[in-house]
Amino acid sequence: MAKKPFALSVKIVIRDGNGRCLLLKRSMSSKWNKGKWDFPGGKVDPGEDFEQALLREVAEETGLEISLERVAGSAESETPIKRIAYIILEGRVVQGQVKLSSEHDEPIWVEPRDLGKMEDLCEQFRPFAEAYSSSAAE
Amino acid sequence: MAKKPFALSVKIVIRDGNGRCLLLKRSMSSKWNKGKWDFPGGKVDPGEDFEQALLREVAEETGLEISLERVAGSAESETPIKRIAYIILEGRVVQGQVKLSSEHDEPIWVEPRDLGKMEDLCEQFRPFAEAYSSSAAE
Repeated sequence: MAKKPFALSVKIVIRDGNGRCLLLKRSMSSKWNKGKWDFPGGKVDPGEDFEQALLREVAEETGLEISLERVAGSAESETPIKRIAYIILEGRVVQGQVKLSSEHDEPIWVEPRDLGKMEDLCEQFRPFAEAYSSSAAE
Repeated sequence: MAKKPFALSVKIVIRDGNGRCLLLKRSMSSKWNKGKWDFPGGKVDPGEDFEQALLREVAEETGLEISLERVAGSAESETPIKRIAYIILEGRVVQGQVKLSSEHDEPIWVEPRDLGKMEDLCEQFRPFAEAYSSSAAE
């Protein structure tokens, strides 16, 4: 049987001035992962520049202007019709206050060492979050 | 100072029927990393579908038809004018024999456990290759 096609999504761990990491609670009207904690970001549409797509998603979802610092990791998930490959970057707040879109119900700032044990995190990010917390604890 | 913009590149660890991993030696006329071992793959152009871009690059660079199995990791590098974010997938040979393009001078099939200690590997993939070898050894 042919495998499901892969789509690409770009996510980001945004750190504030105290080093805490931003998670957003997905709206109860979300198609997937209702009420789960997610990282900002989203799919890159064909035709869209990678960095611009990410900065646009972050501005829409969080109201924040950020800088991109480094590549932090990867993840993978699956829907009934496709597989999603995530590349996860790390960024910093340059300016702005968190202002959510209708996609999310709540923001939370989490210490890096607590990211891996966050309850109700979108399950596909658990391995990444655990690795991120471990490297933060070193 | 403004940071350099990020571009996206998709790379792949292609496994043969014996589980070995394909590396390609970059041509001595390459702009970067001349003569170093690289993974197949390359940049995703704006306007290009992620999966199609990768399968096209693989066909051009290796002559192989492959299946995409999973997301294997990430990496990062820098040129004088930009930063490159790599997402690295894992795939399997479906059919074909390796036939190189002018971009590469030589192919080599490496056991997963040896990937991390491969000499003359493109330096930006060293942390990924070491992690890949470690998880293969488990």
